[in-house]
Amino acid sequence: MSDNILSLNLATTRKQWGFAEAVDGCLRAGITAISPWRDQIAAIGIDEAARIVHSNGLRVTGHCRGGMFTAPDDAGRRAAIEDNFRAIDEAAALGADCLVMVVGGLPAGSRDLPGARKTVLDGLAAILPHARAAGVPIAIEPLHPMYAGDRACVNTIDQALDMCAELGDGVGVAIDVYHCWWDPNLAAAIARAGEMHCILAHHICDWLVPTRDLLLDRGMMGDGVIDLKAFRALIEAAGYHGPQEVEIFSAEDWWHRPGDEVLRTCIERFNSVC
Amino acid sequence: MSDNILSLNLATTRKQWGFAEAVDGCLRAGITAISPWRDQIAAIGIDEAARIVHSNGLRVTGHCRGGMFTAPDDAGRRAAIEDNFRAIDEAAALGADCLVMVVGGLPAGSRDLPGARKTVLDGLAAILPHARAAGVPIAIEPLHPMYAGDRACVNTIDQALDMCAELGDGVGVAIDVYHCWWDPNLAAAIARAGEMHCILAHHICDWLVPTRDLLLDRGMMGDGVIDLKAFRALIEAAGYHGPQEVEIFSAEDWWHRPGDEVLRTCIERFNSVC
Repeated sequence: MSDNILSLNLATTRKQWGFAEAVDGCLRAGITAISPWRDQIAAIGIDEAARIVHSNGLRVTGHCRGGMFTAPDDAGRRAAIEDNFRAIDEAAALGADCLVMVVGGLPAGSRDLPGARKTVLDGLAAILPHARAAGVPIAIEPLHPMYAGDRACVNTIDQALDMCAELGDGVGVAIDVYHCWWDPNLAAAIARAGEMHCILAHHICDWLVPTRDLLLDRGMMGDGVIDLKAFRALIEAAGYHGPQEVEIFSAEDWWHRPGDEVLRTCIERFNSVC
Repeated sequence: MSDNILSLNLATTRKQWGFAEAVDGCLRAGITAISPWRDQIAAIGIDEAARIVHSNGLRVTGHCRGGMFTAPDDAGRRAAIEDNFRAIDEAAALGADCLVMVVGGLPAGSRDLPGARKTVLDGLAAILPHARAAGVPIAIEPLHPMYAGDRACVNTIDQALDMCAELGDGVGVAIDVYHCWWDPNLAAAIARAGEMHCILAHHICDWLVPTRDLLLDRGMMGDGVIDLKAFRALIEAAGYHGPQEVEIFSAEDWWHRPGDEVLRTCIERFNSVC
């Protein structure tokens, strides 16, 4: 059975709407799945956020985000792990499908990428018992290689799956077309993720040509060069038929438009090009 | 025997100097290896450029660049191949170690990345007989995944090596730290390139954090986060002991400085961090 519905990652309307407004906007548009960010939850309080989610029967396709394990010192790393425990508890309260991990890039002052990757693996291992006990799947999100320095040193699906294999139960991957579309090994990597039963989320947007900013110039589906239908076919062939979560950071375009217009466009494009 | 010398890719001083001025600047600085761009050669003429190279005993570590095979129609693709023939002839006249390939991204209007990759392979196969006859090795340069859409759909060393294996003699890879440093499979890929005797060039610069522009914000060695010594160790362990070619596109920084200062800094950093 497919539940191939649209979920709205609330970063998409972060400049227009807080959490409650975004939920109202989604309900007006007929969207019943969301993925919030921790700062949006913090602004309203986790109890109120969870009440809104449950009273409206919303599906939470992911909680954004945990991770950032690569502090330059032990105290920072311990603090990151503690913070991940809180994120796990929030995800549990929201009934989220997973807690999304942006794992962290190089520690400040470091050039040791293999070392950073080891730190990430250690961090994930440290939070997994808490996540398993809370019933919250951990979704490692490989980020585009252009973020290896400052955001995430996990940069391909295969690399994330290698970590999953090492970590055991309770951890999988969030596959975002923006981060992975270029991968020459994409088809095999998605198939492998399916065989490992590791696909926890499928994020969509588009890659614009030209891309004017490394972080905040993601495109609306259909406005860029990613073959979203082909990508979806790979994901479905791998056995994942869950929601497609729209996540668009767009400082110069979509964040300037009325939220209702953004959601209407997301739905149109979801129905036509995804 | 090692000839681990610094070569200057003339893009590094493209805003300051034309070809002849750049050669003069290199000679003043004691740099005896260069890698020019076709527009710089065209401005002075290939005969004069070749005369300058040979009369000064310069090593040409690469000619930049051929490729760009992914035109949207057959006529465009044929024209690209013809243009590559001319680039091969120029490289031969210069006595270049290789002709560097920036293979092209998605054709305009296309989202078919596997198709673009097939077009590149076909284009390379079409130019190889001419390159072999001219004695010019073809160096496929995997470009960073952020260029998959508009510049090069070959994005990892392994992907380039798969192409080399299919194409046979006369083709290898140009390994640029900027494009490849993030690769989780970097060490194995470089070792594989060595086993295949495919390493034709080693380009250096640095990855800045933050990076402010996708194309024109490369850093001077030592100013970014790439572990250049560790990278070099992988390359040497794979059997390559040739020049390290400095290639820095820097619209907001190094292109604004006097050429002599840029070269002096390149040499200092080459001696200290590479």
